[in-house]
Amino acid sequence: MSQSRLTELTWREVRRAGERGIALLPIGSQEQHAGHLPMGTDTLLVEETVDRALDLLAREEAPPEVVRLPALPFGHSPHHLFAAAVSLSAATLGAVLDDVLDSLVTSGHHRVMVVNGHGGNDEIMRLAVKRFALRARVTVAACSYWTLTAGEEAGRPDVTPGHAGWFETSLMLAAHPRLVRTPVPARAPVDPPPLFDNPPHPGLTVERHGEWERVDGATDDASGADAALGARLLDDRARGLADAIRAFDTASRPTR
Amino acid sequence: MSQSRLTELTWREVRRAGERGIALLPIGSQEQHAGHLPMGTDTLLVEETVDRALDLLAREEAPPEVVRLPALPFGHSPHHLFAAAVSLSAATLGAVLDDVLDSLVTSGHHRVMVVNGHGGNDEIMRLAVKRFALRARVTVAACSYWTLTAGEEAGRPDVTPGHAGWFETSLMLAAHPRLVRTPVPARAPVDPPPLFDNPPHPGLTVERHGEWERVDGATDDASGADAALGARLLDDRARGLADAIRAFDTASRPTR
Amino acid sequence: MSQSRLTELTWREVRRAGERGIALLPIGSQEQHAGHLPMGTDTLLVEETVDRALDLLAREEAPPEVVRLPALPFGHSPHHLFAAAVSLSAATLGAVLDDVLDSLVTSGHHRVMVVNGHGGNDEIMRLAVKRFALRARVTVAACSYWTLTAGEEAGRPDVTPGHAGWFETSLMLAAHPRLVRTPVPARAPVDPPPLFDNPPHPGLTVERHGEWERVDGATDDASGADAALGARLLDDRARGLADAIRAFDTASRPTR
Amino acid sequence: MSQSRLTELTWREVRRAGERGIALLPIGSQEQHAGHLPMGTDTLLVEETVDRALDLLAREEAPPEVVRLPALPFGHSPHHLFAAAVSLSAATLGAVLDDVLDSLVTSGHHRVMVVNGHGGNDEIMRLAVKRFALRARVTVAACSYWTLTAGEEAGRPDVTPGHAGWFETSLMLAAHPRLVRTPVPARAPVDPPPLFDNPPHPGLTVERHGEWERVDGATDDASGADAALGARLLDDRARGLADAIRAFDTASRPTR
Amino acid sequence: MSQSRLTELTWREVRRAGERGIALLPIGSQEQHAGHLPMGTDTLLVEETVDRALDLLAREEAPPEVVRLPALPFGHSPHHLFAAAVSLSAATLGAVLDDVLDSLVTSGHHRVMVVNGHGGNDEIMRLAVKRFALRARVTVAACSYWTLTAGEEAGRPDVTPGHAGWFETSLMLAAHPRLVRTPVPARAPVDPPPLFDNPPHPGLTVERHGEWERVDGATDDASGADAALGARLLDDRARGLADAIRAFDTASRPTR
Amino acid sequence: MSQSRLTELTWREVRRAGERGIALLPIGSQEQHAGHLPMGTDTLLVEETVDRALDLLAREEAPPEVVRLPALPFGHSPHHLFAAAVSLSAATLGAVLDDVLDSLVTSGHHRVMVVNGHGGNDEIMRLAVKRFALRARVTVAACSYWTLTAGEEAGRPDVTPGHAGWFETSLMLAAHPRLVRTPVPARAPVDPPPLFDNPPHPGLTVERHGEWERVDGATDDASGADAALGARLLDDRARGLADAIRAFDTASRPTR
Repeated sequence: MSQSRLTELTWREVRRAGERGIALLPIGSQEQHAGHLPMGTDTLLVEETVDRALDLLAREEAPPEVVRLPALPFGHSPHHLFAAAVSLSAATLGAVLDDVLDSLVTSGHHRVMVVNGHGGNDEIMRLAVKRFALRARVTVAACSYWTLTAGEEAGRPDVTPGHAGWFETSLMLAAHPRLVRTPVPARAPVDPPPLFDNPPHPGLTVERHGEWERVDGATDDASGADAALGARLLDDRARGLADAIRAFDTASRPTR
Repeated sequence: MSQSRLTELTWREVRRAGERGIALLPIGSQEQHAGHLPMGTDTLLVEETVDRALDLLAREEAPPEVVRLPALPFGHSPHHLFAAAVSLSAATLGAVLDDVLDSLVTSGHHRVMVVNGHGGNDEIMRLAVKRFALRARVTVAACSYWTLTAGEEAGRPDVTPGHAGWFETSLMLAAHPRLVRTPVPARAPVDPPPLFDNPPHPGLTVERHGEWERVDGATDDASGADAALGARLLDDRARGLADAIRAFDTASRPTR
Repeated sequence: MSQSRLTELTWREVRRAGERGIALLPIGSQEQHAGHLPMGTDTLLVEETVDRALDLLAREEAPPEVVRLPALPFGHSPHHLFAAAVSLSAATLGAVLDDVLDSLVTSGHHRVMVVNGHGGNDEIMRLAVKRFALRARVTVAACSYWTLTAGEEAGRPDVTPGHAGWFETSLMLAAHPRLVRTPVPARAPVDPPPLFDNPPHPGLTVERHGEWERVDGATDDASGADAALGARLLDDRARGLADAIRAFDTASRPTR
Repeated sequence: MSQSRLTELTWREVRRAGERGIALLPIGSQEQHAGHLPMGTDTLLVEETVDRALDLLAREEAPPEVVRLPALPFGHSPHHLFAAAVSLSAATLGAVLDDVLDSLVTSGHHRVMVVNGHGGNDEIMRLAVKRFALRARVTVAACSYWTLTAGEEAGRPDVTPGHAGWFETSLMLAAHPRLVRTPVPARAPVDPPPLFDNPPHPGLTVERHGEWERVDGATDDASGADAALGARLLDDRARGLADAIRAFDTASRPTR
Repeated sequence: MSQSRLTELTWREVRRAGERGIALLPIGSQEQHAGHLPMGTDTLLVEETVDRALDLLAREEAPPEVVRLPALPFGHSPHHLFAAAVSLSAATLGAVLDDVLDSLVTSGHHRVMVVNGHGGNDEIMRLAVKRFALRARVTVAACSYWTLTAGEEAGRPDVTPGHAGWFETSLMLAAHPRLVRTPVPARAPVDPPPLFDNPPHPGLTVERHGEWERVDGATDDASGADAALGARLLDDRARGLADAIRAFDTASRPTR
Repeated sequence: MSQSRLTELTWREVRRAGERGIALLPIGSQEQHAGHLPMGTDTLLVEETVDRALDLLAREEAPPEVVRLPALPFGHSPHHLFAAAVSLSAATLGAVLDDVLDSLVTSGHHRVMVVNGHGGNDEIMRLAVKRFALRARVTVAACSYWTLTAGEEAGRPDVTPGHAGWFETSLMLAAHPRLVRTPVPARAPVDPPPLFDNPPHPGLTVERHGEWERVDGATDDASGADAALGARLLDDRARGLADAIRAFDTASRPTR
């Protein structure tokens, strides 16, 4: 079988899969997502995207072999501790990624992919895969699920992904409607809008102390979120990820 | 509701639960479990025990309120890297526990319980809860699922828990029979038996380089494992854990 | 005077400037830049851009007050150690940034800007400014000099910034022509092009062990570099940075 | 000579002893021991036990060769800092053990034993010997002096070892009577008894913030301590340790 | 050319220079220097001394080949944070030195010299060069610029180097008169004089909390500083450093 | 009593002593000392000097109160691992000193003195006391026993202290004659002499890889060592240390 879960494999199966397959690690977070979305939103959405992408691949004729690791349910969310989060420091998350990646290469893997569900993990994930490729003879990929599309999206790039806003709420209404507290209340625009999401000059990263509290923990109004559109957006990401896995498989194949 | 999952709660619900409830964190491992058990055995078994215990409590009249965190699926398994494991170093696992525990207290929790599924995590977990109780005004408990019983066990203490042997195989046959590769092959006793499991003097901890390889990754013969007995053993642990949660709740209640 | 150098100020002047000014830290690198550019290219270019931007601001009527720190001449360049680099590890560079930023807030600064000259520093810089804004009551900005433009650029976005290619060589021909070894030799396209610069799917970060060696340390052909165009590109960046400083000054002013 | 002190050996003698002998490191603590026992109680008792055990072995015909290192006089006692302690953090103590163990293997030792005198060092010592056996080709043992007996004890298991109570006071009356402030005052039972010593469910580790202060730094009443019984208990431990050293020597001999 | 700047070399030139030359790293500080000297005094003076020494060597017939690295403009100045400093912690500065030295050996250098401009860096620099010579096949030297003389000095050893006093002010009047705020105000002797500069017994290092604040950030009266004498003192140091570089070159030459 | 040992005090006595006394920590090493001196030479000599100094003080009329801590028997000796040493890394030794010093201030001490017996500990000790005085309201002193004299020495400054040479051997002949293997063999001068002990220019610190092996682990010929002269040298140090303690007591007295 080309798609398997590391949790369910014996060690000899892991060894065999490592020889020719891609190990895929989802990473998420547990953090406040305003009053209507659950703490695990990022983890739930990255797992949903990954599982849909693997299902798509499994239906193909000669799909790339993928071993899916259990998702890391905690991420780097210090900016959400003011409300509630279970947050790993950047150093801790980096160490977890280093240890997991090193373990995989020790078990014979040489192609790994990290798929991220939480913006705050992004730089830490990038640094980890760069470090990994310098110290081990591997090819390694990293992405955040919302950045991959199959090109057919018809959403709202202005608020994607944002945090606890229109995009994430739409996806959750599609994937886990039971976990969304409805009706989602409307929210008036915050003025000025959050600096971290609206830098005063393009290309500038700006952070201000207390900004997440000031904007009440969300980037945009989620009340217009839509389950049907969420399903299309999620499907587009799943196909985007399936495409990316296939492309990575081709580009990194050892026979190369 | 008295039993909830942090992943599914909004942050305000987490805050409310933190005031009077117990946060419960399961920790497991991904590591070789001989030729017949899956990599995730420890994680699967600790989650099974925890979920059964919480179900038992939920049926009581005035059960302690428990918020279950997602299990940490990776543990400290450097001694299993020779075959296959996804292992966090002791420093990394300790940092993860510190960060998770600190996050909980920041979110208003003051009673926490860590339930462990993997022997190699034990000392790291103990150190983490001791550190935690020194730096925060909390009461915190830690245990490994196999050490708690409701007192009705009729098993084989000589090989409990062991590793990938009679005990774990029996439990897996009861909880996840689909994941056990059967028939489980018999294994001749290793001579001398593994030093780490059979110290030359009582009270002595002994470690020898390469010992896990020498004994082929398991402590005892699993071929006699039994699903029915496994179910009784597992049930006994679940009731033991439920009892322990209740006792911890009474002993740590803030009104005290 | 509105533009000053921390190196030349007395401590009382630093204190006074900290109350209302912006502290600006340039960071660079020392690393191989193919056969025709010097090791300090990134440091030289970020300093050039910063100095030009500050000169532009100094000519305005009510310019923002800026205290320029000495540039950190070393960056994170482990991927260039195969040829020659003086590289700080990610942990070291992160610690340097933490220490510098903490020192500034201790000296009374509450508005800081980091301007980067080397791609490999990017994630580390972002993490540092995020950490900083969480632990101190500051507003802090970060950017890489090549991402800021005044909007009049007429260059080659396909190879900007790249490494030791058309873009950097053009800028060096404009800013430090004496340090460019000419004529710059042409270079045939590498096939396949470097994975890190040409991911197999948009949105994917891919790193392969040994890739920088394989492509001989540069991303693209520098032989068409042009001093006049370099001067326009550099000028555009300097004006972009000046604009960004002004916009940051407005957005972060304490009276807000 | 079969029993020697590393402090008194020349480096060539250390090298020779390392080839066939066991290096033995005692570790203790400096921490409050109620009003009647000195700060160094744990160090003094572990040294006393070790020296008696080595004396017993020296009288045998073909004793195992042991090189005794100087005791580490400081341990991990953060829970006693409220009164007085000289405490190493867990990270520091772990680093000391790593460095000492690595030094020994560099000097040619391949069999090492750590004998502990303080409960708070236990997990750190276990982790250190496990790490050591993974990174070096050694056999290594660890124990706390009170857990080893020759099987003839007639004491009070209910309060052994405890802290600054009946057990330690009896031993100190036997080994260092001059250092015990007498008469030892009686102490009424604390209600509830210390949680860390009396968990609400068997198998549960429980720590509560401030618990050591609440129970005034001791686990049980020391007023009934007895010098003669202390001498028997101490002698039993010394013979237990001698037995354990012999057994470890046999089990770890290189000819094996 | 025998004297070059790493910043201006291509990587192949660095490689060639590393084979037979000495890499020289100046390190300085940014810290309060009383009311009349600038923050960068230590960096400016060490750079001045180094550049003069290299100029002297360049005029010789067969000078030692030296590659000068860019100065590290920040040092370890926690004792000056009370007024203003940009200070690296001891751990951070040690890590920077480790990384720079390791990079140099990776680039083929095997002879390195660190020249220091700030007292607070001294122990950290010494530890770094010792570590370096243990882990790499190199010969490495370290010094502070004021300790090297050509033997013709006629200054005031009683206040040399001190901090922001007669010595440094004289040198700055000689090297950077524009940066000295004049007239330098006289200062009455502090009673008792600073403990760190006047230990109560020879051979004793003494540090008292708050001592730098108490003595207002300077060790001695700078009002008698003299530009002409400063020029002679600086010249003497430059010739001392040139002599030391030549002597180090002879003592460390690989043909030895 | 004015002179006491922390090991023998109860915690209340430690608290009382901390209010007005000086805590004194000796630190040593375990490392090769050529063929004739034992591994513990540095620890034995610093303890001997400290104990003699405290005896001298105890005989005075109003002696300063001193609480002597147990000596740290291990130091930083990586340069002696080639023969045999039990060495702590610089980071570990620094952490031990930080933890011990912090513990003392937590127990109420505000005056501390560290007395060192091993050259390799020097910079680490200095950094530790500087850090300590910055983070705690204390006065703290540090010295190496050989640098303190009562001014009556008639020895050989050219080889003092050196390593395993004339000076240390003379002192050991005086203090621990039983531990010196005699006759001490003569040793021909090594040519060139060890660079670390004979820098090519005054004021230069030079380290060369493998230098300790090249000079066979000692700095000078010990065959002329003399017990009587050793006794005078040791006595001079003990009186020097007693003087220094008295001077430190006066300079650091809280009533000041």
